[in-house]
Amino acid sequence: MARRKPNPAERRRELCDAAIALLAIDGAKGLSHLKVDRKAAVADGTTSFYFRTRSALLRGVAERLAELDLANLQSVADSAGAVHSSPSQLSVMVIQSGIEPRLSLTKARYELTMHATRDPKLAAILQQSTDAFAKLHRDILVRLMPHGADLEPAVVADLSNVTLTFINGLLLRFAHGDRIITSPEQLDDILSAIATGILKSSKKGRLT
Amino acid sequence: MARRKPNPAERRRELCDAAIALLAIDGAKGLSHLKVDRKAAVADGTTSFYFRTRSALLRGVAERLAELDLANLQSVADSAGAVHSSPSQLSVMVIQSGIEPRLSLTKARYELTMHATRDPKLAAILQQSTDAFAKLHRDILVRLMPHGADLEPAVVADLSNVTLTFINGLLLRFAHGDRIITSPEQLDDILSAIATGILKSSKKGRLT
Repeated sequence: MARRKPNPAERRRELCDAAIALLAIDGAKGLSHLKVDRKAAVADGTTSFYFRTRSALLRGVAERLAELDLANLQSVADSAGAVHSSPSQLSVMVIQSGIEPRLSLTKARYELTMHATRDPKLAAILQQSTDAFAKLHRDILVRLMPHGADLEPAVVADLSNVTLTFINGLLLRFAHGDRIITSPEQLDDILSAIATGILKSSKKGRLT
Repeated sequence: MARRKPNPAERRRELCDAAIALLAIDGAKGLSHLKVDRKAAVADGTTSFYFRTRSALLRGVAERLAELDLANLQSVADSAGAVHSSPSQLSVMVIQSGIEPRLSLTKARYELTMHATRDPKLAAILQQSTDAFAKLHRDILVRLMPHGADLEPAVVADLSNVTLTFINGLLLRFAHGDRIITSPEQLDDILSAIATGILKSSKKGRLT
């Protein structure tokens, strides 16, 4: 029985998923329309049909990454009632970004981010995921902190900026295979240690 | 008057500096032997003569970056007597990595780091700089902390791991043009806030 022919939206997703896998393994250098065809096991020329240029392909991949990220963030937001669970959903999500299958997405995102400094449209697509993650991060932080809802906005901004920068550094180390933290419980301890220190200092004035 | 012909070591440095500038502006995709020739204003074919392959060129660049980094680290280490100066030499160095001329080195290093996951020899060269920076970072941290010399090795390891991961995240944001912190004084305040929190938590057990 022949496989049902996917509709165009499904086909684009399939091609983008193949491109993400290639980016994760071989980097941007290893990405070509033909390699995506072969990886996705479709007829030669299919990727070129759906994404005319290399830029179009990279933007398609960035949109697919944003879609996957948002679905993941949504599932974390949906478990908001359990936000005081230990470990936190935030830490579970970050630690999972260092393990397959999500590690490939993490690696692909860093490859695209390097490109985005030279492609404003690509940068704008990636920025959507970054903003959504920053918002969720801030919301979870506030709920995790004792009396979080009473914190001044400037203090919340300091807390988010510093912990998010730490998480950026951590994800980059994960992308390079450097797993300095392996459990969400560990990450929770570190984030709350950082938050304790920042809270103490923030009373003396804005940090970031 | 004709310019004195540089010796081979000088010529290699000159070509690598041109390659660093290209990496910073256009990324790895924008790097070719011919573009380095043009950027360095030397005869076509010169870069191919000194660096036969693309891998050889990337490794040459990594060695040049390591050389520049070590010179910079050395100048910080030499000012060890002034380590209690405010701002700290460590923070001055990190903030300078976000401003030209050093920002180009920061960008070039991230480009090479992405490649290094697929080139063990390149990874080994970059690791030298990483290790040297981690050692200096640890030494300065210990000297900056009150009673730093009396801290247990496990606590020092936690302090270094967490603050270094934060600095990694910060440098990555700098490389993308996101200057969330602009003064070394600010960075000192944040690092000591993080350290205060980590020290408090470290007493309950190892964090990283």
